[in-house]
Amino acid sequence: MEFRIESDSIGEKRVPKDAYYGVQTLRGANNFNITGLKLNVEFIKSIIQVKKAAAITNEEIGLLKKDISEAIITACNEILEGSFYDDFIIDPIQGGAGTSMNMNANEVIANRSIEILGGEKGNYDIVNPNDHVNMGQSTNDVIPTAGKITALKLMSKVIKKLNELCDAFDKKGEEFKDVIKMGRTQLQDAVPITLGQEFKAYSSVIRRDINRIQKLEEELKILNIGGTAIGTGINADTKYIKRIIPNLCKVTGIELYQAENLIDATQNLDSFSAISGAIKTCAVNLSKIANDLRLMSSGPRTGIGEINLPAMQNGSSIMPGKVNPVIPEVINQIAFNIVGNDVTVNMAVEAGQLELNAFEPVIFYNIFQAVEMLTNGVDTFITNCISGITANRERCSELVNNSVGIVTAICPYIGYRSAARIAKKAIKTGEPVKSILLSEGILKEAQINDLINPLQMIKPGIMGR
Amino acid sequence: MEFRIESDSIGEKRVPKDAYYGVQTLRGANNFNITGLKLNVEFIKSIIQVKKAAAITNEEIGLLKKDISEAIITACNEILEGSFYDDFIIDPIQGGAGTSMNMNANEVIANRSIEILGGEKGNYDIVNPNDHVNMGQSTNDVIPTAGKITALKLMSKVIKKLNELCDAFDKKGEEFKDVIKMGRTQLQDAVPITLGQEFKAYSSVIRRDINRIQKLEEELKILNIGGTAIGTGINADTKYIKRIIPNLCKVTGIELYQAENLIDATQNLDSFSAISGAIKTCAVNLSKIANDLRLMSSGPRTGIGEINLPAMQNGSSIMPGKVNPVIPEVINQIAFNIVGNDVTVNMAVEAGQLELNAFEPVIFYNIFQAVEMLTNGVDTFITNCISGITANRERCSELVNNSVGIVTAICPYIGYRSAARIAKKAIKTGEPVKSILLSEGILKEAQINDLINPLQMIKPGIMGR
Amino acid sequence: MEFRIESDSIGEKRVPKDAYYGVQTLRGANNFNITGLKLNVEFIKSIIQVKKAAAITNEEIGLLKKDISEAIITACNEILEGSFYDDFIIDPIQGGAGTSMNMNANEVIANRSIEILGGEKGNYDIVNPNDHVNMGQSTNDVIPTAGKITALKLMSKVIKKLNELCDAFDKKGEEFKDVIKMGRTQLQDAVPITLGQEFKAYSSVIRRDINRIQKLEEELKILNIGGTAIGTGINADTKYIKRIIPNLCKVTGIELYQAENLIDATQNLDSFSAISGAIKTCAVNLSKIANDLRLMSSGPRTGIGEINLPAMQNGSSIMPGKVNPVIPEVINQIAFNIVGNDVTVNMAVEAGQLELNAFEPVIFYNIFQAVEMLTNGVDTFITNCISGITANRERCSELVNNSVGIVTAICPYIGYRSAARIAKKAIKTGEPVKSILLSEGILKEAQINDLINPLQMIKPGIMGR
Amino acid sequence: MEFRIESDSIGEKRVPKDAYYGVQTLRGANNFNITGLKLNVEFIKSIIQVKKAAAITNEEIGLLKKDISEAIITACNEILEGSFYDDFIIDPIQGGAGTSMNMNANEVIANRSIEILGGEKGNYDIVNPNDHVNMGQSTNDVIPTAGKITALKLMSKVIKKLNELCDAFDKKGEEFKDVIKMGRTQLQDAVPITLGQEFKAYSSVIRRDINRIQKLEEELKILNIGGTAIGTGINADTKYIKRIIPNLCKVTGIELYQAENLIDATQNLDSFSAISGAIKTCAVNLSKIANDLRLMSSGPRTGIGEINLPAMQNGSSIMPGKVNPVIPEVINQIAFNIVGNDVTVNMAVEAGQLELNAFEPVIFYNIFQAVEMLTNGVDTFITNCISGITANRERCSELVNNSVGIVTAICPYIGYRSAARIAKKAIKTGEPVKSILLSEGILKEAQINDLINPLQMIKPGIMGR
Repeated sequence: MEFRIESDSIGEKRVPKDAYYGVQTLRGANNFNITGLKLNVEFIKSIIQVKKAAAITNEEIGLLKKDISEAIITACNEILEGSFYDDFIIDPIQGGAGTSMNMNANEVIANRSIEILGGEKGNYDIVNPNDHVNMGQSTNDVIPTAGKITALKLMSKVIKKLNELCDAFDKKGEEFKDVIKMGRTQLQDAVPITLGQEFKAYSSVIRRDINRIQKLEEELKILNIGGTAIGTGINADTKYIKRIIPNLCKVTGIELYQAENLIDATQNLDSFSAISGAIKTCAVNLSKIANDLRLMSSGPRTGIGEINLPAMQNGSSIMPGKVNPVIPEVINQIAFNIVGNDVTVNMAVEAGQLELNAFEPVIFYNIFQAVEMLTNGVDTFITNCISGITANRERCSELVNNSVGIVTAICPYIGYRSAARIAKKAIKTGEPVKSILLSEGILKEAQINDLINPLQMIKPGIMGR
Repeated sequence: MEFRIESDSIGEKRVPKDAYYGVQTLRGANNFNITGLKLNVEFIKSIIQVKKAAAITNEEIGLLKKDISEAIITACNEILEGSFYDDFIIDPIQGGAGTSMNMNANEVIANRSIEILGGEKGNYDIVNPNDHVNMGQSTNDVIPTAGKITALKLMSKVIKKLNELCDAFDKKGEEFKDVIKMGRTQLQDAVPITLGQEFKAYSSVIRRDINRIQKLEEELKILNIGGTAIGTGINADTKYIKRIIPNLCKVTGIELYQAENLIDATQNLDSFSAISGAIKTCAVNLSKIANDLRLMSSGPRTGIGEINLPAMQNGSSIMPGKVNPVIPEVINQIAFNIVGNDVTVNMAVEAGQLELNAFEPVIFYNIFQAVEMLTNGVDTFITNCISGITANRERCSELVNNSVGIVTAICPYIGYRSAARIAKKAIKTGEPVKSILLSEGILKEAQINDLINPLQMIKPGIMGR
Repeated sequence: MEFRIESDSIGEKRVPKDAYYGVQTLRGANNFNITGLKLNVEFIKSIIQVKKAAAITNEEIGLLKKDISEAIITACNEILEGSFYDDFIIDPIQGGAGTSMNMNANEVIANRSIEILGGEKGNYDIVNPNDHVNMGQSTNDVIPTAGKITALKLMSKVIKKLNELCDAFDKKGEEFKDVIKMGRTQLQDAVPITLGQEFKAYSSVIRRDINRIQKLEEELKILNIGGTAIGTGINADTKYIKRIIPNLCKVTGIELYQAENLIDATQNLDSFSAISGAIKTCAVNLSKIANDLRLMSSGPRTGIGEINLPAMQNGSSIMPGKVNPVIPEVINQIAFNIVGNDVTVNMAVEAGQLELNAFEPVIFYNIFQAVEMLTNGVDTFITNCISGITANRERCSELVNNSVGIVTAICPYIGYRSAARIAKKAIKTGEPVKSILLSEGILKEAQINDLINPLQMIKPGIMGR
Repeated sequence: MEFRIESDSIGEKRVPKDAYYGVQTLRGANNFNITGLKLNVEFIKSIIQVKKAAAITNEEIGLLKKDISEAIITACNEILEGSFYDDFIIDPIQGGAGTSMNMNANEVIANRSIEILGGEKGNYDIVNPNDHVNMGQSTNDVIPTAGKITALKLMSKVIKKLNELCDAFDKKGEEFKDVIKMGRTQLQDAVPITLGQEFKAYSSVIRRDINRIQKLEEELKILNIGGTAIGTGINADTKYIKRIIPNLCKVTGIELYQAENLIDATQNLDSFSAISGAIKTCAVNLSKIANDLRLMSSGPRTGIGEINLPAMQNGSSIMPGKVNPVIPEVINQIAFNIVGNDVTVNMAVEAGQLELNAFEPVIFYNIFQAVEMLTNGVDTFITNCISGITANRERCSELVNNSVGIVTAICPYIGYRSAARIAKKAIKTGEPVKSILLSEGILKEAQINDLINPLQMIKPGIMGR
């Protein structure tokens, strides 16, 4: 490979001749080979959008010459359209509060801009990564800002998917509205419910999650860009500070705001803890639903067997014909992963010190992973599971009629204690509840049919009143 | 001890003659001796408030005779005023979704009501714990409802304390507004800030927490009472379902609402995950502030030593004169505990199955503990730490003037690279930045004094422009 | 109340006249009112044992006069026998690395010793809490040492209970060894197993936990006592350092060792992270078993219903006759709590700085709670659940015979693909596997009976070979 | 692209003509697009090693024809040498307990074997993925077995790195053995220590971690291979069960054992919880060390400044000359990530049900990530940080001499109370401790020099005795 020599405060270093990144990026890449992964593409784009908005602003206020700013903007546009991603070589988990990834962006943009202006890569006299591309900025305002913008983008995807999921639940809720089945509490027979009601409840809880996540989006729109190193705005022109946000709004198409207290906004990453928490609560709710589906579809012969999940793949390499609830199982695993991600995020948020939280990289890595996993998980959940669920109507009905929990309905008439006695007798002898009531002369047949009517038990009210 | 004999579906059992609790409570107490602790007093009160509202409602709709309902209401009032707490003997961590604590309340109220009506404890023909006290209710709607009401009460206390804390921070922010000190990022010297700005930032982040917690209060006001066993409202009179919430509002003095989907509201405890998350984010923010205070007060001689925390107690049993940051340290520990509580809450929320989450007891135990710990911690934080903090003004000023980070201000004039060279020289030689600039003829003295002016560096803008 | 005046470096303070604690304790109690709880009794005892061993040692090496050391030893013995616990008033969660609880012990011992020697409480010229009781010690070696001794004591209790649990599982394993039932993977019918094999597996996994916990006991026996403030042993006589451990062994009856590197042993609390982790793994295993029991006992009519858990209490305040798996449910909750405790412990262990980890209080509180909860939980698990489990033999057998998973056994004869086709047909049509095999002429009746024999399927081997 | 048609129980599907994977893999890939990542390469190799050992065994016992077994073994060898990795297309997080990845391996091996035997890919009559490659196996014994083998391989790497780290610490411990510096507890000045003692303590704690991890390796060597679907060994020839482990030992070069209770070993993944816990404790210890290094190197001018970390990269995009502790910071982040991973692992281990824990994929993903991150982190920690640390000897010495904590040494002579008074006076007035002692006539100069001798204070003993 051919190389060019670049130098920084630390010293000289050989950089691959064709690379758009430079010496500072290379140091970062050498220092941090932790996950072997690359930065999230949406995150790269968000950093570039910040750089573009800064170049526009700096030109507007007369700090950056037009040719340089135009070259920078062009370079940014090229990256936003998909070029040069291979030149982003920094590991997502890195020390230094994101300086390495900020410099990676600065260097790629600078070198591309130099090319555009007819220079050779590495000739930073033409366009300088720090003085021109990073003008008015600091890693400490660029990276949190880009992190929030990325989170907003990823969240809008997951919200879209969650809404689709709710629609899918509602559709099943409608489809199964007359499938009466046994309700269970603590895995023990309780009182009747419809399968439709189950699915409507699933939709209801996830819509609450959507609402929670959306509320937190407002928080993420509040940025510290303009605060530079520690939020005091040192080295950022006051006109720049006023114009950077409007320009960033235009570049991203998102409504964004400047924090009232830039010092607070620079040193505290609590909004990421909050959003991580909301994502986690949603994941936990989905996992509960996945568990329910696995329970209700347990069988085919020796379980509950009230519903069928679509058969997506052979369930076993040894047991022929076995079909497993693989999609709900992946939802469970995603939830477990996201609860772990959230713990990581919180430890990192707690670890901020004085003017900065240097642990943004691990926070972003975990939040982006959580949101993307959830998006992908919900996608397969809808397509490969929920939409294809069918009900075993006969089985559902048989279980209700065979159950003892229906004795609950006559409790207001004969009292808890007598009802409990009958229930125990029914369980012990296997005799149906109705026939015990009749044979013991407790109620007359007409009364019994009136009171013990599963179709009525799924609605509020005291039976027979 | 003298005993009376009571019996339930399981069989007979000797109950202490004077006890207001009954056989079902006793079984619960025997089954669960887990923490050795008692129920949170506010939680007991909230359960009793639900019982009182139910009695009022059942009488209003004609299901409960006036003498019985009045006895129940009187019994409830007595408990709310502080009586009979020793009769609540159930461990906060218990199996059975709270049935034991619900029955504990039912039995204490029933036995006290029986007494009021002139009967003997245990004579449940007069007032029955299940048929009368629990009328129209199920553990599955009473306990989540009482849990939410309790959380609301405890949260209003912590919000009050947090507001006081913010006021204390703001006061210090004002007091220290002209104390220029070194800002630090990644524990390395950065650029100047004022001590006042630090404290204003602390206030700013905690006010964001308050806002987040308050928003979630709205969620907790939405209750599943009236849904009975599984949210379908079986065995609750439709009139009862309509009137129970208005009566509960009156009894508690809190604005409360009925969930639109009672089935969802009965089986999902995600609102507790959400509130636990908000409390945890607040705790994590407080821990970061506590860390900052510990860093800034490190010393007295060999640390940073910019501030003094009030000396609250001897710091060591062996090292005389040592005073330690004991109050911030307890804040850290509270935060660690609350992050753990949150993990527990989320595992328990995830573990709900079908029509019920039976793990409310451990959820409530952890949330109540978290909120109360935080309240108590913030209280001592304000009184015994924040209010008494003093600044070492000279030390702060000396450190700023001695620092190298101030070279940042001239970066826009001489470029990042040259500035970096000077900074490195200053660090290596110990020579002040100003004198290097002068001796190297980079800037003139007047310019230097103009540009390197810490008083200006704490505000936005490019120095000297 | 009457008071006496005491003073320390901070100033004067009124102490209740009858109190054995003194001014430093009182400051600690005022500073930390966090949980409202008291110190674990075993922990108090362990601190006192350290104090007693130190007094013995200091007298042996001639640093403490015999009358003073004897008074101290007598005071310690009285506390160990159960006196003066009300004088231990420090909250378990406290700032200051345990100085408050160490001083609480020092002051109670000193004041009781003063009394024994005929003086008046508070007259520390006779016996001084710091100079005499704490001689050669520091909070920083006393508290970690007492914490480890306490953990050892609590762990021996939980190990005893876990062994009893394994015995209970084994007994059931024997009792149910011929109960053939369906095995399930991913909640789907798999291949037969015996109920006895299930219980033997439960015993097997918990015995592995016992083994793991016991191995870690060795680590906890390695103490930093003698290291004093930071592990360098300053102010501890070299003879004291040699003799303190042998004396502590005698006092506690436990084999204990001195750490080779006392500096490491003073600043690192990783052994508590390790033991917390082992307890947590055990809790997680128990929770899995609890889940299995809840699944297998689900019903009574509309679930799996293979086993019956003993009915410990009414399961519902509204649904008569309902009996819930309350004991397994409390095991689940304990496990959730312990996973949370472990997160707290790890955050606190991570937060140690330089020569000390000041967060011992929250670590000990969480570990002691975890171990005691587990002990109590296992106790009720054995007595109120495992011992009383019965099998529904007919139901088990019926489910096996009705299942499709048994087709697995003929896979080696007809290949996975053909076997899968038959399985699917059986599930779809409801026709038994055997009859399909016969009607399709795939195997002869004798072969079928030979191959599809659940009694053989529970053992290793290819059927019919 | 050209395709071939394959079919399974679910139906027909087009498979890319050149692909070595088949229809079942493709379904898995379509169902699970969760992380976008590929399986860990070591994990693929471990699965292949199991397949190879099984083929050897099945031929030995006469169940597999020699030509087929030889083809399978050749295919396995090719994969082990690095071929066909692109054909492993299953997402590491997948539903179905690993059936998809097991089938991915079975299909790639089968198709390659078919080719070797002269057939065309997809012609499973020649070599069948289920009947031949998977013979005697089940996903449920293959995947946990391969997971444990992988963990063992990865752990041996991390242990090697941790040993190197300890050596690096020890070397620095030697280098700095005479650098006296101030010890600090709770960030407050305590008593002297040497910088060498600090580094020796770091080595000491990490060696304890190594020991802990190594002990757990023994557990991971105990495998459930041979247990097939649920541990009963159905469809595995008894001779196979005996010979598979010895063959696996040969193939892997690792000493491995068969679990005594295969049913337990199939359904419980607690050994992964244990190893995850040990890795986490190690990470937490490393994070504490990283924090110490960041504290001690804080500065350069306004912090503690006792040591210098090597400058690895520019520390800031805005503040010239700033060098940050980027390597310790990445260690912190790795630790935070690993604590999160551990929570995920534990939730997944808890979620096992009956005969299987279907959540192995997320467990393995998190454990493999944790161990590899730690390995990579330790590598950069050694090379780019520890090895290059230098001491600021003068600064260290100056801080000690300026400190007040040294008054501790005279405590045994003048009592805690008097010593505390002098310490407070020194802090208040700024007067050195020695001069106060002299001016107040408390001790004579010779005594003072004898007692207050930092060189002696770093060793056990009462000064001057």
